[in-house]
Amino acid sequence: MLQAPLLLTPGPLTTSLATRTAMLKDWGSWDGDFNALTASVCADLLAIANGGDSHCCIPLQGSGTFAVEAAIGTLLPRDGHMLVLANGAYGERMAKIVSTMGRKVSVLRWPDGTPVDPIAVRSALSSDDSISHVGVIHCETATGLLNPLDAIAQAVAAQGRALIVDAMSSFGALDIDLQRQPIAAVIAASGKCLEGVPGMGFVIAQRAAIALAKGNSNSLALDLADQYDYLQRTGQWRFTPPTHVVAALRAALDQYLAEGGRPVRLARYQANAEVLITRLQAAGLRLFLQPELQAPIIMTFYAPAHPDYRFATFYQAMRERGFLLYPGKLTEVETFRVGCIGAIESAALEQAAHAIVDVLNQHGWL
Amino acid sequence: MLQAPLLLTPGPLTTSLATRTAMLKDWGSWDGDFNALTASVCADLLAIANGGDSHCCIPLQGSGTFAVEAAIGTLLPRDGHMLVLANGAYGERMAKIVSTMGRKVSVLRWPDGTPVDPIAVRSALSSDDSISHVGVIHCETATGLLNPLDAIAQAVAAQGRALIVDAMSSFGALDIDLQRQPIAAVIAASGKCLEGVPGMGFVIAQRAAIALAKGNSNSLALDLADQYDYLQRTGQWRFTPPTHVVAALRAALDQYLAEGGRPVRLARYQANAEVLITRLQAAGLRLFLQPELQAPIIMTFYAPAHPDYRFATFYQAMRERGFLLYPGKLTEVETFRVGCIGAIESAALEQAAHAIVDVLNQHGWL
Repeated sequence: MLQAPLLLTPGPLTTSLATRTAMLKDWGSWDGDFNALTASVCADLLAIANGGDSHCCIPLQGSGTFAVEAAIGTLLPRDGHMLVLANGAYGERMAKIVSTMGRKVSVLRWPDGTPVDPIAVRSALSSDDSISHVGVIHCETATGLLNPLDAIAQAVAAQGRALIVDAMSSFGALDIDLQRQPIAAVIAASGKCLEGVPGMGFVIAQRAAIALAKGNSNSLALDLADQYDYLQRTGQWRFTPPTHVVAALRAALDQYLAEGGRPVRLARYQANAEVLITRLQAAGLRLFLQPELQAPIIMTFYAPAHPDYRFATFYQAMRERGFLLYPGKLTEVETFRVGCIGAIESAALEQAAHAIVDVLNQHGWL
Repeated sequence: MLQAPLLLTPGPLTTSLATRTAMLKDWGSWDGDFNALTASVCADLLAIANGGDSHCCIPLQGSGTFAVEAAIGTLLPRDGHMLVLANGAYGERMAKIVSTMGRKVSVLRWPDGTPVDPIAVRSALSSDDSISHVGVIHCETATGLLNPLDAIAQAVAAQGRALIVDAMSSFGALDIDLQRQPIAAVIAASGKCLEGVPGMGFVIAQRAAIALAKGNSNSLALDLADQYDYLQRTGQWRFTPPTHVVAALRAALDQYLAEGGRPVRLARYQANAEVLITRLQAAGLRLFLQPELQAPIIMTFYAPAHPDYRFATFYQAMRERGFLLYPGKLTEVETFRVGCIGAIESAALEQAAHAIVDVLNQHGWL
């Protein structure tokens, strides 16, 4: 292939050339210029979530899952009890993180494709005073479902518990407003809707909660209270930062702001999603989710019912045409996923939809 | 400054343009091409340490410290007891990692600048059967001291314990041979002597030890047994890998092998160190370490004795001339550090030495 394929995946995704060329410079991690870079990135991330003075932004090395584990390990006291609201693979992963670190966890489950029900959450909390924290996935990437964050946050706050939100695949595109929504911590990463490259996560956390969290973490590397304390005292990350990844995120944020910020980013993704869904539905493919539950991030489609259909063959044929798809992540039904985020516009999704239909027709699978 | 400064630091360091331009392509983390990239990087890292069939290479997202914590958390059983051999800040950090994860740790200490004594290690082990693992820093970056790895490994093996080596700033340049040295795990990172960019660590671990380590880790993100199991089954990292960082490391390894591998890399660093030490000593500056203890990685010099000397002023003046130095990391005496690793040759160190002497003379500090 003469050109790199477009990544129709939920991250890593296709980034702009301006973002990638920002990695052509080496940075000293102890230098004032790099400290300023970190500070400006954190300030912009905080502003995107309208964190104001109530919250702070703490960057962390590693993938988004590292930041999820760090947020829970730092904010959940050792004798705390976390209720995870799960309707997909990432909710289950969050629960596994809590149990692996040896803290108490309960799970309230919904089937794939069914949103978290805030009334059930309120009821679960009112019947168990020991639950101190609630965890939820904003956009469940396993299906592409958008959970009702506003109502969940209100339900959790009404019961006086702290909410931790994994906003990995939604941050920067979907609505998160920390002055309106009562949320203790929002977690995301560089390589998703902000369109940076993968390699760092970040947590937008309540300052008051971080101030009380000293000594909670069983991990030195993943202790966000310690990371934040050091950052405030020195301007530096505690351990070697992924300097080029941070520089790429700075460039990606510059483009994000120049493009018009969150509303414009969301509108682009909505246009991408609409083109894809319309074209594939017209060809007879079915969306897994009810349309009103679908976030414009990643779409799950039922695989063609034809007995000869094989995802691996479909994937390779699409790859040869310049598009990388994503496998399904549901255990009960065969699906495939197509992401619509990244530095791509609706014309790319139109081409992708055309290629999907053409490949499936060529194999006689439609 | 029209040109980026040279990083005379122990990582992040100055990388080659070929390494940085390898980051201009986006990779799908689920794609076969990226799996092949990961496999080839791991194979080369394993070969550099002569890991053969006895060991395996497990990559990990994050900084080198994340990999140190992951190696200990995975290999040290929950009822294990680790003896850390400490003669500097990185040894102390290793001990803190163990105590933070709630496992038993003892520390055998030597002053800054004094190497670990293998006879004392053997004696400590023979007097405490509960010690299951021993941890040591190969090159203690706080001073630049090279610990006697061969003799330490023999002493630990003679007592039947497992040795975990933090080889962060030595791997790829200094001698590590896992067929000769009895070592359970060696830990390093992308952005040091291999001259990649920072953002991933890796652990070269005994296969037999990893096979027994399932369930030891209190962390999902840092569980190397789980990471290795998934990598073997799928060819993929469990969580989003830093794709561009991995691609840069592949490019850096290509250059490493083309240059002639470890002996040639070491010879270049030795030439760099020799130029720097010779020039600065001729100007009256004193090396902190005894010459026979000095690794050709990072050199610690006593700060000038002049009462007006300020590192911050010295740093800024050097920065304006295009060189980033590193602060000292000793509590008892004022020092500064100069790294000689990275994609730089002795001419650069000669220029740096010239600039150091000139700046110190201009301020009247020599």
